[in-house]
Amino acid sequence: MTATPSSTGRIYGVGVGPGAADLMTVRADRLIRAARRLAYFRKAGNPGQARRIVDGMAPADAVELPMDYPVTTEIPFADPRYGAMLSAFYADCAGELRRLAEAGEDVVVLCEGDPFFYGSFMHLYVRLKADVSVEVVPAVTGMSAAWTASGVPATWGDDVLTVVPATLPESTLARRAADTDALVVMKVGRHLETVRRALDAAGRLNAAWLVENAAMPEERIRRLADTTDRAAPYFSIVLVHGEGRRP
Amino acid sequence: MTATPSSTGRIYGVGVGPGAADLMTVRADRLIRAARRLAYFRKAGNPGQARRIVDGMAPADAVELPMDYPVTTEIPFADPRYGAMLSAFYADCAGELRRLAEAGEDVVVLCEGDPFFYGSFMHLYVRLKADVSVEVVPAVTGMSAAWTASGVPATWGDDVLTVVPATLPESTLARRAADTDALVVMKVGRHLETVRRALDAAGRLNAAWLVENAAMPEERIRRLADTTDRAAPYFSIVLVHGEGRRP
Repeated sequence: MTATPSSTGRIYGVGVGPGAADLMTVRADRLIRAARRLAYFRKAGNPGQARRIVDGMAPADAVELPMDYPVTTEIPFADPRYGAMLSAFYADCAGELRRLAEAGEDVVVLCEGDPFFYGSFMHLYVRLKADVSVEVVPAVTGMSAAWTASGVPATWGDDVLTVVPATLPESTLARRAADTDALVVMKVGRHLETVRRALDAAGRLNAAWLVENAAMPEERIRRLADTTDRAAPYFSIVLVHGEGRRP
Repeated sequence: MTATPSSTGRIYGVGVGPGAADLMTVRADRLIRAARRLAYFRKAGNPGQARRIVDGMAPADAVELPMDYPVTTEIPFADPRYGAMLSAFYADCAGELRRLAEAGEDVVVLCEGDPFFYGSFMHLYVRLKADVSVEVVPAVTGMSAAWTASGVPATWGDDVLTVVPATLPESTLARRAADTDALVVMKVGRHLETVRRALDAAGRLNAAWLVENAAMPEERIRRLADTTDRAAPYFSIVLVHGEGRRP
């Protein structure tokens, strides 16, 4: 939590959690219900997952500030144009939030999951924190919702948990999967086949679960080895549970 | 979430989050405020951290079922007596919860942090789930509260996060710290000196933060390298932030 006095308005980076509205924190719930301005990222043309989660909670007269990603999966991360477009986009969004804060307005920025755990809000936060009052509200992560939905505890005793984004190379995923007790693979989406091959190479495929849309109405849980899908929904996590000390 | 019809009462394993009452989920808040029976672990003679967090929320007439650990740090984990004592204790606690559920009573079991992430409730859960209706409510973890309190995002882009208990051998901690982007060390407490040496050996000491009692009134954040303490409070986390892709 950082707060500096140079702006009179405040930017709140509020984690809305994994998907169910009642898995939001009480602090997030209060801030959203009282918000005069709500900002959120979305893929252009989509309503945005964070915004969907707060349907029915946000005041009807709140001003909404959707922030449409200029690119999502159309250009690979490695392409320099990807970085340049995103950088300009985040600078624009941060500039708009700074102007509002300097004009004395508070803005609640809705963040899927926990804001400081692989979240887009971090790109605004680092551009604002030096001269704008910013408060971050942590949240239940998608991975907590996933292991809860699986009905099996994630980590016991001395278990090591490794969290890897599925965007890493297959050989890296395999090495990581072979060298941990519990494993969480984030951002599975289009990388499902890569993740399946990596876990097979690591000898962990038969212990792995694919959890799609945890804590949402579309929640679905399968053994990864039983799937043949080439891709999974964006909000999918692959999970291997730890087997540590349990008296 | 598991629910079987063989008991008429239900056991709720409710994560109360990292420490601040308003960082509880709305679902947890509702369950606790409506509870007729509240169970919680504690070290004998202490009020118990989970119980403390819900002070002022729990109904005054709720029946309280404290579960006093027969041993915490008096006997090493590796000692067979430790496992035997804990096993008997968890079996007793689970038996009492089963009797209540079979008698038609609901019980809310308060869990620090997230129940399925290094939590004691898991030891009851595995003893009950086959024949008792059990519902688990995920929560904000202590590590989310710690990185939020640090004011620095934890994981960016392709960062790998490794979570290790400080109870592991020093050489294992050092190897893990050297082979990850972001690092979270749980259960630091009495192991602070070991953790400091391990991070130094891994070349990560100067990037590490010690976060004590995150999201609690006693919250305190220091660079690990600036500390000379031999031990930290039980609710302490050592944190190294990721430095991944950020357009």
